[in-house]
Amino acid sequence: MPGTVQSIERAAAILRMLAGGPGRLGLSEISRSLELAKGTTHGILRTLQGVGFVEQDRVSGQYQLGASLLHLGTSYLDTNELRSRSINWADPLAVRSGEAVRIGTVLDGQVLIVHHVFRPDDTFQTLDVGALLPLHATALGKVLIAYRTGLTTTELAAYTRKTLIKPRELAMALEHVRECGWAADVEELTPGQAAIAAPIRGYGGLVIGAIGVSGPVERICDSRYAPRPRLVTSVRDAARAISREMGAARR
Amino acid sequence: MPGTVQSIERAAAILRMLAGGPGRLGLSEISRSLELAKGTTHGILRTLQGVGFVEQDRVSGQYQLGASLLHLGTSYLDTNELRSRSINWADPLAVRSGEAVRIGTVLDGQVLIVHHVFRPDDTFQTLDVGALLPLHATALGKVLIAYRTGLTTTELAAYTRKTLIKPRELAMALEHVRECGWAADVEELTPGQAAIAAPIRGYGGLVIGAIGVSGPVERICDSRYAPRPRLVTSVRDAARAISREMGAARR
Repeated sequence: MPGTVQSIERAAAILRMLAGGPGRLGLSEISRSLELAKGTTHGILRTLQGVGFVEQDRVSGQYQLGASLLHLGTSYLDTNELRSRSINWADPLAVRSGEAVRIGTVLDGQVLIVHHVFRPDDTFQTLDVGALLPLHATALGKVLIAYRTGLTTTELAAYTRKTLIKPRELAMALEHVRECGWAADVEELTPGQAAIAAPIRGYGGLVIGAIGVSGPVERICDSRYAPRPRLVTSVRDAARAISREMGAARR
Repeated sequence: MPGTVQSIERAAAILRMLAGGPGRLGLSEISRSLELAKGTTHGILRTLQGVGFVEQDRVSGQYQLGASLLHLGTSYLDTNELRSRSINWADPLAVRSGEAVRIGTVLDGQVLIVHHVFRPDDTFQTLDVGALLPLHATALGKVLIAYRTGLTTTELAAYTRKTLIKPRELAMALEHVRECGWAADVEELTPGQAAIAAPIRGYGGLVIGAIGVSGPVERICDSRYAPRPRLVTSVRDAARAISREMGAARR
């Protein structure tokens, strides 16, 4: 990209590497991966440390992500319009369906979870906000790719025996999503788990996100492993309500 | 700082400004605040946009934080040792106390919430992870400053009529924290809300974090506005258990 600042791109690459890896990395490992001189890498790391984006482990000398990123990340959520306009619809959907609700958008060829309402019971659940999930193996992801051109997942990784890994199978599933207006995944990402999702549209009808319910397959699906119609209706109603909030025409 | 990379520091300053402000800022505003030429600022913003740390609003042309930061922020949580070692103790504390549990550490003279377990009932609660709270007006913050030298809050802002805004009052409260081993805040940050917290120690007994319960004042305190002894005991037990996990000697 012309006119960009190389050192900032390198700093971003280091942060991505720390986020994607095992957690901590040494100077040699980082400079080798980025094909940079150790001195250059060290200068960037020291600067990132100064601004709180990176922390250095006192014992091992290795680097890891810093606490300042957490506040920046959650500040992003506060300004995310999709999330702020969806929140008032996600809570009632969780109550009505009795299931966990998640809202996702596309980031770097994956689904980024921007909101998550726990299933309204007393069980302990892990928050998925900030998680990146595969597009082709999730209901949210299928909705997001079904309506977008140019968003093809190059490699269809198999997460379970039910994941759609053949391009033709996936294409047919996406065709079905466009016809019906909703998507499901039944044990395609995690055995025993299922999900239903529908598109959130913005101005001009553009799909800008997806909302859905997810949980144990026996709760989401009936005895024939088909998504429960009652849940599909609730998810689609919520998606339509948010779409109107986001400026989409009624449909 | 010698040997640091200026453009990365400037990029970090822009991200902080976007996180601290109303959400969106224009090019002129940003370059004026940082006392940089518009061209320089634009180059940094374009680079930040390229790596997904910043997004530009199509209509207004203003800049806001980008989605990539959310994933970096939550990845930080995965590598945060205080959080990962505390999680197994936070859930039981929430169950035993029946209250919301939060774990905090110090960032930039404030309390950064790194973990939050909702009160175990069906009420909708807002996740505080990533939030920054004032040190002097919270139970978590009082614990964090009581055991640290050099962590003095320069300005004691008043959040309610009960906030300790006189340095002498705060000093006495911190003295009390060190004597008793726990801290409380009763309507000092938010009217109607109270909290209790205790220190989490690491190697050598150093205080590295704080854990506490928080909620409506009538749940946390008795009829005389004093923290319920049962809750204080539960919080202190959890803090001690985590401290042992973190390598502190038994005390």
